[in-house]
Amino acid sequence: MNPARPTAHDKILDAALQVIRTQGLAGTSVDELCVAAGVTKGAFFHHFKTKDALAIAAADHFSRIADGVFTNAPYRALPDPVARLIGYVDFRQAMMKGEMPAFTCLVGTMAQEAYLTHPEVRAACAQSIDAHVDMLEADIADAMRARNVEPPGGPRGLALYMQAVIQGAFVLAKAHGDAAVAANCLDHLRNHLAGLFGWKERNA
Amino acid sequence: MNPARPTAHDKILDAALQVIRTQGLAGTSVDELCVAAGVTKGAFFHHFKTKDALAIAAADHFSRIADGVFTNAPYRALPDPVARLIGYVDFRQAMMKGEMPAFTCLVGTMAQEAYLTHPEVRAACAQSIDAHVDMLEADIADAMRARNVEPPGGPRGLALYMQAVIQGAFVLAKAHGDAAVAANCLDHLRNHLAGLFGWKERNA
Repeated sequence: MNPARPTAHDKILDAALQVIRTQGLAGTSVDELCVAAGVTKGAFFHHFKTKDALAIAAADHFSRIADGVFTNAPYRALPDPVARLIGYVDFRQAMMKGEMPAFTCLVGTMAQEAYLTHPEVRAACAQSIDAHVDMLEADIADAMRARNVEPPGGPRGLALYMQAVIQGAFVLAKAHGDAAVAANCLDHLRNHLAGLFGWKERNA
Repeated sequence: MNPARPTAHDKILDAALQVIRTQGLAGTSVDELCVAAGVTKGAFFHHFKTKDALAIAAADHFSRIADGVFTNAPYRALPDPVARLIGYVDFRQAMMKGEMPAFTCLVGTMAQEAYLTHPEVRAACAQSIDAHVDMLEADIADAMRARNVEPPGGPRGLALYMQAVIQGAFVLAKAHGDAAVAANCLDHLRNHLAGLFGWKERNA
């Protein structure tokens, strides 16, 4: 794959991320995806048999992009696992600005509307969320050992909670048409984690 | 209005709550709403000029039902505002079981997909969420005074956070196809509030 000349396949996936986050999965037609990607309908169906197949591939595409972003984020290099957890919240909060389709979650959006009617899309959304939860869970497990803390549901329970806060922050920001509503929610998550793990700011 | 013989108007609103929570707003056609409500398309358009007009009325209908449920919930009678806050979380958690369309949030679902493409629906969703936040905010303000606690963003900021947790818990439960994922998230919210307001169980 030559990054200077993206294939129709990649253009469709990139368009899906943007268009579905803007208007939802059911609210997006294959025609709209083709226009946004600059490809023909023939090219679309050459790569994806159905809109659901595209949605499933888009969930995976979204996960791979997110994995790259978080793996390379500066906070990942912090030696203290509690600092990494707080750093994760700060990093997510810093992303919550600008246009909402650019920072909200593709798989949370698709799961919300398609969870019962499109079970394979739901499963792809769960897989994407779980991959992100796995990363957090490892830091939380380290932080629990380091601070001798036992939140309910263990490290995975707290990792899922952190994702719930972020997903819900997106829902509230969308409802209010205001990214700041999401960012403000993360202040509370940060406080919760700081209290739980006895985190004190170095420069407080 | 005779409750023994619901009008077409009321049957459509009740059907909207169920069908939209099952398959999303864009994923629901007027034809499907008519079938679910047992009304003709003529009757539908007599009461609602467009599907958006129905969605806006459904958000208000949902709010009125929720208001009745929470106003009459046993925890509302607790004299200690912190007990009311904890009682609210317990009450919400107890509802998170059974079929997901029955306990998830109509307005969170609609806001998630329609926030940019249907601004009047978005505004109706925000109004519904805000009415619920108002109720919580009053209890939080009382609890802050009673315990001399100052969470970030004041009482409204914490009330919005509590709603974010609940909305995100729904998203995660839908993605995983498991109501318990939502209920487990509320354990963490409860812990957070208990820590913040120094809440101790009477029978702990």
